[in-house]
Amino acid sequence: MHSAVPHERIAIDLGDRSYDIVVGAGLLDRPEMFDGLPPASDAVIVTNEAVGPLYAARLTTTLRAHYRRVHTVTLPDGEVHKTLSTLNSIFDELLAQGVDRRTTLFALGGGVVGDMAGFAAACYMRGIPYVQVPTTLLAQVDSSVGGKTAVNHPLGKNMIGVFNQPLRVVADLSTLNTLPQRELVAGLAEVIKYGPIADEAFLGWIEEHLDELLRRDVVALAHAVKRSCEIKAHVVAQDERESGLRAILNFGHTFGHAIEAGLGFGEWLHGEAVGCGMVMASDLSARLGLIPKSHAERLRDLIGRATLPVVGPALGAARYLELMRLDKKALAGEIRFVVLDGPGSATIRPVPDALVAELVEANTA
Amino acid sequence: MHSAVPHERIAIDLGDRSYDIVVGAGLLDRPEMFDGLPPASDAVIVTNEAVGPLYAARLTTTLRAHYRRVHTVTLPDGEVHKTLSTLNSIFDELLAQGVDRRTTLFALGGGVVGDMAGFAAACYMRGIPYVQVPTTLLAQVDSSVGGKTAVNHPLGKNMIGVFNQPLRVVADLSTLNTLPQRELVAGLAEVIKYGPIADEAFLGWIEEHLDELLRRDVVALAHAVKRSCEIKAHVVAQDERESGLRAILNFGHTFGHAIEAGLGFGEWLHGEAVGCGMVMASDLSARLGLIPKSHAERLRDLIGRATLPVVGPALGAARYLELMRLDKKALAGEIRFVVLDGPGSATIRPVPDALVAELVEANTA
Repeated sequence: MHSAVPHERIAIDLGDRSYDIVVGAGLLDRPEMFDGLPPASDAVIVTNEAVGPLYAARLTTTLRAHYRRVHTVTLPDGEVHKTLSTLNSIFDELLAQGVDRRTTLFALGGGVVGDMAGFAAACYMRGIPYVQVPTTLLAQVDSSVGGKTAVNHPLGKNMIGVFNQPLRVVADLSTLNTLPQRELVAGLAEVIKYGPIADEAFLGWIEEHLDELLRRDVVALAHAVKRSCEIKAHVVAQDERESGLRAILNFGHTFGHAIEAGLGFGEWLHGEAVGCGMVMASDLSARLGLIPKSHAERLRDLIGRATLPVVGPALGAARYLELMRLDKKALAGEIRFVVLDGPGSATIRPVPDALVAELVEANTA
Repeated sequence: MHSAVPHERIAIDLGDRSYDIVVGAGLLDRPEMFDGLPPASDAVIVTNEAVGPLYAARLTTTLRAHYRRVHTVTLPDGEVHKTLSTLNSIFDELLAQGVDRRTTLFALGGGVVGDMAGFAAACYMRGIPYVQVPTTLLAQVDSSVGGKTAVNHPLGKNMIGVFNQPLRVVADLSTLNTLPQRELVAGLAEVIKYGPIADEAFLGWIEEHLDELLRRDVVALAHAVKRSCEIKAHVVAQDERESGLRAILNFGHTFGHAIEAGLGFGEWLHGEAVGCGMVMASDLSARLGLIPKSHAERLRDLIGRATLPVVGPALGAARYLELMRLDKKALAGEIRFVVLDGPGSATIRPVPDALVAELVEANTA
């Protein structure tokens, strides 16, 4: 067997939309990981041009134990294709292949594939079930939990989508072996995030095991993915549709989105921008007197050690403010930020523009 | 006041997705009909080029009592525009107008507007609330209850959509005054449907009050809309996501869809095709020995009196069978039909092709 670690199950408690996340190595090849899904004659694997050639054939073989027909829909790779038009191409293929409602869809890939496949599953014939099979660290610790699906619109990211919980998430750590190091590191930014906002002990664990994570030690990755999913699941269970608490998961994201948008999406990876954004948000928290300066420095050190950027691009404070207002859809008034207010604790605060500007100047070059 | 009849409320019981249908005359002008919706600064009226000029200004005035800004998005009129591309034009306008998540959407129009506005509300920023303000009899008795939203795909009608329940349905009978007679009659087909499938007494009432309905007597229309919604709501409450029972609402629709598709969509109105389809489905029920021939004849008489077609177009039995298989997404095996099996009672039965062919020959010319 592949599995250096036994697989573990994390239960996501969302009432009648509850599901399990299974984390382990080599899961893609084990038909029993897909036991107990609703009976269906057809399975459809939605993947992309980068991931499909690596794993679609293996997943197809595994799913043949459960389904009469296994179709594959291959999307172009990249966030630039996360559009309504690509979504429609999924529908075109499903209808052309005669796929009916008695079908289960499998999202095999990173966050973009998961977002689009989950959205397509929600809308195809008014809803077919779907399973996430995330193959990037970012997708395993972030987008596969929470049921957010979406496509981008020229006027904004993730503007069109629905909440649609998967039936199951099968996170195969072995698929991370083919992930470029830069993407692994970007995923680590979201892993690190869960420490300061929710679990001081996990932050300590990450500091201790960062080197193992960076060299993809499967035992360390298993714990990182499991604990990240547990924390995100705990937050999401309390606020499935993002009316309040769930916003703390966006720690570092307001600065991060400004960096991504200011440089042009794709220049920095999302996780890189979030890593740098967390440095800025921690500094902001210290300047607001909510945490000691030493705590902000500790986080900056960890993010730097993870080989993530800790200094933002010099777009100018005015441009940062403009981009952040746009991102927040709050054109007037103070911008609200997720800030740290203690060990393993975050909250949301409106911050005066002058302080934001000061902070941007201090953290960009 | 407009109201010759006081308004009535029908409670649709769907757990945490429950809502009320308000039926009455002149409701569009009464701000209190829109009391108690979630607080929001913006309202968006989605309507079309035919209905907008008649009612959008009045609804805007009424909604100004509750919302700071009232936007209007006007779609082109007609089923041919019920596409993902028109849906995207709604998103374009909402984003261009800076509409955020604290917005309530109002679908002002017939079934096409309701289907698209409900779908858009489900997907805009992962979901904003919406209210149905149906202005056709068909929409008031059918599409405004049940939460089905969708757009068409070149390979099939209503293939892309979601279940999304409105917060409220405000059915203003006064808006039916501007409805072309042909559309009123088409709506009556769905009203008539509820009798044979679910309520023998209602069937008797329709027979007795058909002339009043045809001349748009508001008291008769109020009862017809109310009772239709009650019956549909009762069925939908037992089967929200259409796994079984809800299929009886498709009485007459398998034949009807074949007529619509065979002649080209739009040639016959949906309700006209369903009216004729009900004649065929009743005859089928009698030929299967499930109801007396006299019951089928009684229904044919009523449908004829309603000025709906009772004889289908001569497409040939083979073509009917082909179209029905396609519609049912069942290319092999016997086609399943909704049939009557007693007074006010329907069920679903597979029927041999030979009998279907015989029936088509007897009911087309």
